[in-house]
Amino acid sequence: MSAVRELDLIRAIERAISNRSGRLVRWTGDDAAVVRARPVAVTSIDTVAVGVHFELETHSPADVGWKALATALSDVAAMGAEAGEAYVSLALPSGFGGALELVGGMEELAAETGVTIAGGDVVRAPALVVTVAVTGWAESEDELVGRDGARPGDLVGVTGDLGASAAGLLVVRGEAPEDPELSTRHLRPQPRLREGRALAAAGASAMIDLSDGLATDAGHVAERSGVRVLLRLDDVPLASGVEEVARATGRDARSLAATGGDDYELLVTMPPERAEAATGLTWIGEVTEGEPGLEVVDAEGRAVEGLRGWEH
Amino acid sequence: MSAVRELDLIRAIERAISNRSGRLVRWTGDDAAVVRARPVAVTSIDTVAVGVHFELETHSPADVGWKALATALSDVAAMGAEAGEAYVSLALPSGFGGALELVGGMEELAAETGVTIAGGDVVRAPALVVTVAVTGWAESEDELVGRDGARPGDLVGVTGDLGASAAGLLVVRGEAPEDPELSTRHLRPQPRLREGRALAAAGASAMIDLSDGLATDAGHVAERSGVRVLLRLDDVPLASGVEEVARATGRDARSLAATGGDDYELLVTMPPERAEAATGLTWIGEVTEGEPGLEVVDAEGRAVEGLRGWEH
Repeated sequence: MSAVRELDLIRAIERAISNRSGRLVRWTGDDAAVVRARPVAVTSIDTVAVGVHFELETHSPADVGWKALATALSDVAAMGAEAGEAYVSLALPSGFGGALELVGGMEELAAETGVTIAGGDVVRAPALVVTVAVTGWAESEDELVGRDGARPGDLVGVTGDLGASAAGLLVVRGEAPEDPELSTRHLRPQPRLREGRALAAAGASAMIDLSDGLATDAGHVAERSGVRVLLRLDDVPLASGVEEVARATGRDARSLAATGGDDYELLVTMPPERAEAATGLTWIGEVTEGEPGLEVVDAEGRAVEGLRGWEH
Repeated sequence: MSAVRELDLIRAIERAISNRSGRLVRWTGDDAAVVRARPVAVTSIDTVAVGVHFELETHSPADVGWKALATALSDVAAMGAEAGEAYVSLALPSGFGGALELVGGMEELAAETGVTIAGGDVVRAPALVVTVAVTGWAESEDELVGRDGARPGDLVGVTGDLGASAAGLLVVRGEAPEDPELSTRHLRPQPRLREGRALAAAGASAMIDLSDGLATDAGHVAERSGVRVLLRLDDVPLASGVEEVARATGRDARSLAATGGDDYELLVTMPPERAEAATGLTWIGEVTEGEPGLEVVDAEGRAVEGLRGWEH
């Protein structure tokens, strides 16, 4: 876009966002944002691209903005950190008129999560690509949880229920009957920030957000922790409506829930003595001795093969 | 790309980058990077897109990686902060084989500037778009310099010399005779991190990096500070070779230097009593009373119209 139009858009964006941080010293209008830090910074950067992570036929610009921030915040949630500031890059194709609506959707989620969009870049590009870097904060690195702390004997749990985003995608694409709740779960995923901090405080040994699908993400924990993770497919909590969508589209509901991406629930491992006190989790497996890797079993304990995450 | 190929690429990238920070607690392989903070965080996010900020016919993947990091670091330089960590998003079209070379070019500049590439995202996208968020650090917000502190009576200076990037672009495009130094100045711009910190310490009242061109960026300082900035076009220091390129392409050398983007030198304003002690600057103007805005004059003091930044 022209430098003049870009400047107009940037000013409109600046008017559309709110400073809800007591730590911001400088934000829009300078070369960089300036923030009074807390002792430990937790930063993730995530990108969504048209035709890959969303389609403008099924996602409004506001949905795209929401999703771009949600994916970055979900990583901060998975560390057990408190979300702070977001830095947003909008790569906009010529003729795309939804930039301000996109920022509006992002700002909606920022308001819900107490995040401040503290800086950004707006550029012309051949295709719509939105990148968000989020910084979260903690008082000490001991408050945080990585992917590498799972130990044999730990239980494996998930927050919420799974499959809603994958089923919702089939709904918004018109491949499954209408289901407004599933559509919303796909279009407006909720990063589990509060849950992540509570689980970190409750003694989680490892944590990851479910962005690539349960099977793939559980595999990451197994690999990074050097342990064997056993998941019981029949214990995976299904979101309401997923069975109907699975039936209508000739799929297996639990496989859909175990491989569908973008649920943004948290997978957590926890020693059994800590697990008793944790609430809001469904226990779906355990960490065992043996060859590091992931094993998924059915109700009879037979191995389930061929589960893998969605390709982004 | 497929999840499997993406993972292979991410692992290759992890092997290609070095941790040169004493502050990193967790970096690659987790949901987010964890960094022990200093008191004040300075963050900028910048994006370069194919066909807009570079062309693969003229820029190698390594040049693209270098440039993407340089643009973000230049903003940190313009605040007077010390560069810390970079977070990199690679949006890669199908069939693009240069991702690792791109990261290699970025890592080269990271090594030169003491920066650690601490996290990233790799996604498939319709077109090559690279986004870098950089965090710099300071001990106190008083160490930093914004765009809003210019005051009447201040002198206006620039680091280095100007026009090299714009002239270098004409060279790499084959529109001007070969000039390896100018090509390098365009393809491998140097963020002025050391200079930015020295100028902040020397008492700069306002600072901005020259990414959109001298005229446009000086206008930003004028607007944000609410002052009139007067620039003497004939005092603008021309990089070696710019006059030859201007002559060969039918342009005015100083206009090229005043409007060409991506020089990444710093424009600084400073009270006269501080300016005496500052080194490495060329004084090209002053801050005056009067209607806020930018005024560019020639050697006879006549207004020069029609200078504006490049359009990105």
